[in-house]
Amino acid sequence: MDLRPPSVRALMEELQKLPGVGPRSAVRMAQYLLKEREEALRLSQTLVQAHERVGFCSTCFLLAEGSCPVCDDPGRDRTVICVVEEPVNAWAIEATGEFKGLYHVLLGTLDPLRGIGPEELTVAKLVDRVAAGGVQEVILATNLTVEGEATAHFLVQLLRPKGVKTSRIAFGLPAGGEISYADTVTLARALVARRGME
Amino acid sequence: MDLRPPSVRALMEELQKLPGVGPRSAVRMAQYLLKEREEALRLSQTLVQAHERVGFCSTCFLLAEGSCPVCDDPGRDRTVICVVEEPVNAWAIEATGEFKGLYHVLLGTLDPLRGIGPEELTVAKLVDRVAAGGVQEVILATNLTVEGEATAHFLVQLLRPKGVKTSRIAFGLPAGGEISYADTVTLARALVARRGME
Repeated sequence: MDLRPPSVRALMEELQKLPGVGPRSAVRMAQYLLKEREEALRLSQTLVQAHERVGFCSTCFLLAEGSCPVCDDPGRDRTVICVVEEPVNAWAIEATGEFKGLYHVLLGTLDPLRGIGPEELTVAKLVDRVAAGGVQEVILATNLTVEGEATAHFLVQLLRPKGVKTSRIAFGLPAGGEISYADTVTLARALVARRGME
Repeated sequence: MDLRPPSVRALMEELQKLPGVGPRSAVRMAQYLLKEREEALRLSQTLVQAHERVGFCSTCFLLAEGSCPVCDDPGRDRTVICVVEEPVNAWAIEATGEFKGLYHVLLGTLDPLRGIGPEELTVAKLVDRVAAGGVQEVILATNLTVEGEATAHFLVQLLRPKGVKTSRIAFGLPAGGEISYADTVTLARALVARRGME
């Protein structure tokens, strides 16, 4: 007999849809959320509020609450656009403090097998931004996956005729990387991308 | 610069309070929940509904929505009470199909260092149930932790004078258990609890 009340079962089913949450973690989370009433209600509220208040910037498609934290910042370098797959990728790049330009979020990658072409992404908007002038370089910072690579190459073909410089973020060994622990794709990339030393 | 809108930051902070969720999983969960609007709103609703509809059974302290799935079931064996720490423990025991008696959820364990004594648990209610008569055996199924063991021993001292049989759930090697992989506590327990073979 299943001793879980229907509402608890429903909660656990919803929790299990979250990425990385299996049946056991769902039990632990449900137990916590049933004990901590205030926490549960606060989580419930933040979920609704995030959807009520947050939208995509209509220019760069970062998540924005009101004004865009990048496009509406007069201090950013408007000659460089860094193209990423998802807003979270831009958050990570921004956290390095190394990039002061603008972003463009594709909201996905090309994936013909799943029927995702350029029209399903924000590609046309990126082309518009480059065509509007003032952009000197587009950095392609899509992931090092089959889809991310294909998307980067597609965008290079599309943007090169517009007379803008395109570059790809460097892949290689991570900081502190042990050569014998690196996977072969990373190691191959690191070899091909080797740089001269004096 | 932190590119996360305030509502997204709030959502990620709430997610990180869940057991087993660190900064990276919180990012992945937030990304999913921001993309899947319907899922996010459904999760929000199930959280509220679980707290609105679910309460503790006033006899055994299992989670109940309306009637208690065990206490209000006339088919259960009312001579045996299985004592557990939390409702989830009873769910696991029930899933074995081996137990047809009643439960009693302590809602915690004795933990003097944190100021948790018998008054903070449902101990008095358990004593009342036994004193009311009809109960022949109390199975102590608290966890094999310092606190769970101490709680079991405390309850045995308390219940023995009431003329009720007390027993402890057996600990030993898990099914399919490899002796060389077992931790020392489990192995020691399994040795002490050895049974005669013919």
